[in-house]
Amino acid sequence: MKRSSPRFKAVAIVGMGQIGGSLGMALLRRRLTRCVIGIDRDPAVLRRSKARRACTSTSRDLGAIAGADLVILAAPVRSIVSMAPAIRRALKPGALLTDVGSSKSSVMRAFRGVPGFVGGHPMCGTERGGIQAADPRLFDGATWVLVPADPAALPEIARLVRALGASPLTLDADDHDRAVALVSHLPYAFALALSASARKGLPARLAAGSFRSATRVAAQPAAMSLDILLSNRFHVARAAETMASSLRALGKALRKGDAAAVKRFQKAGQR
Amino acid sequence: MKRSSPRFKAVAIVGMGQIGGSLGMALLRRRLTRCVIGIDRDPAVLRRSKARRACTSTSRDLGAIAGADLVILAAPVRSIVSMAPAIRRALKPGALLTDVGSSKSSVMRAFRGVPGFVGGHPMCGTERGGIQAADPRLFDGATWVLVPADPAALPEIARLVRALGASPLTLDADDHDRAVALVSHLPYAFALALSASARKGLPARLAAGSFRSATRVAAQPAAMSLDILLSNRFHVARAAETMASSLRALGKALRKGDAAAVKRFQKAGQR
Repeated sequence: MKRSSPRFKAVAIVGMGQIGGSLGMALLRRRLTRCVIGIDRDPAVLRRSKARRACTSTSRDLGAIAGADLVILAAPVRSIVSMAPAIRRALKPGALLTDVGSSKSSVMRAFRGVPGFVGGHPMCGTERGGIQAADPRLFDGATWVLVPADPAALPEIARLVRALGASPLTLDADDHDRAVALVSHLPYAFALALSASARKGLPARLAAGSFRSATRVAAQPAAMSLDILLSNRFHVARAAETMASSLRALGKALRKGDAAAVKRFQKAGQR
Repeated sequence: MKRSSPRFKAVAIVGMGQIGGSLGMALLRRRLTRCVIGIDRDPAVLRRSKARRACTSTSRDLGAIAGADLVILAAPVRSIVSMAPAIRRALKPGALLTDVGSSKSSVMRAFRGVPGFVGGHPMCGTERGGIQAADPRLFDGATWVLVPADPAALPEIARLVRALGASPLTLDADDHDRAVALVSHLPYAFALALSASARKGLPARLAAGSFRSATRVAAQPAAMSLDILLSNRFHVARAAETMASSLRALGKALRKGDAAAVKRFQKAGQR
């Protein structure tokens, strides 16, 4: 027997970008709620959100979350953190609260002790950002990391994640942040550095397959990526430094013509 | 009026891997020759090459190139270099000679002064290697770098490249090697280092899109890649060291929380 999907009287989504907009569309299409309050500072974004049926009502006022029994924070990480005091004040007692921020430690600190709160990070999204890139199927098959804060709220948020087509994975905030620094933020930094080097007088036609795929992620929205790098700066810094050491060691082995060392470098990355 | 395709009485291909096999198939299917002599050390590879119609006759003896009016060297770069004296001895006077090695400086040195020689590098190939991955359409639309040695032979080799569906790009060997170190060999090294780091206790399910695309090239055949890294070792070393410095600078900026420096890093990679 299929377990019933969660139902919410009203859901508030703070930040109607690609993820926030996709959430609103998915919640409404999957009939998990009939009322999505879209909250954003930008009136043009709110108009487009409503036109795309990513929300049923809009507000520029954070206080509007008071009417919701589920609040999803889908703004950049540092904005989420700066909004925390206002969110704490306006949140309806008994409401569930979660976020979709790309790094988790600072968000978990900002909402420590808030009843109903569970941190989250859906591992999806594309290079394109904004409400125009919203897609109700964005979460299909995605891994959605959940970082437990209020243990009583975890099963309900996990049920929501599954109802959106994604697959919950419970992790500690620090483990999550270390992992995404490596699998996501460092590849982005590499793609940027590679593009920058390649522009210095490289024949454009030599940009072959591996180069294109290695630099594809350099195209993601700069403001969002800056927020991600800075909000996870110590883990990204460590990942970048570890990578720098590996590449320096490889450079040294190559200069010496040390085939055995180059082979070991290959083998470590292949098993 | 379409210019006529080149015709060869007999073509010898030395090294029946993915590129060599694809060349044989393309030459025969496009009727640029009726006779392809497949040369390889491995009898099993030769049997498969013939079965896949990548050649019409086979030999394990380099001396078999003496019967060809076009010889294509499709072995790993360091093998090509080590075969150079034997190739020089066996080559028929008046024959054209070219190669498909992934780095060019050492090959150009090895065949300096050989009449009919032009260096080459088709910018294609996939992570899969070997005759089983041969595909007569591999060269369709690809950029094929040509490094002139005998200027009289260049137009004929360029015509061959176009007849195979690719697009010739004439470059100096050193410019080529510097470029491919950056666009191809460095991304491979990064993918290896990233995979190696990620294996150290990372939740497997966190391997999202950007990670998968950043590590895809780590799967290419190890022996071939080792040859490529070593044959182009000074340029790859320099590219790796430049990248290491960039990543170290980024790490420093992140540790300091220097948003302006991180923004500059982004901007350099985005324009």
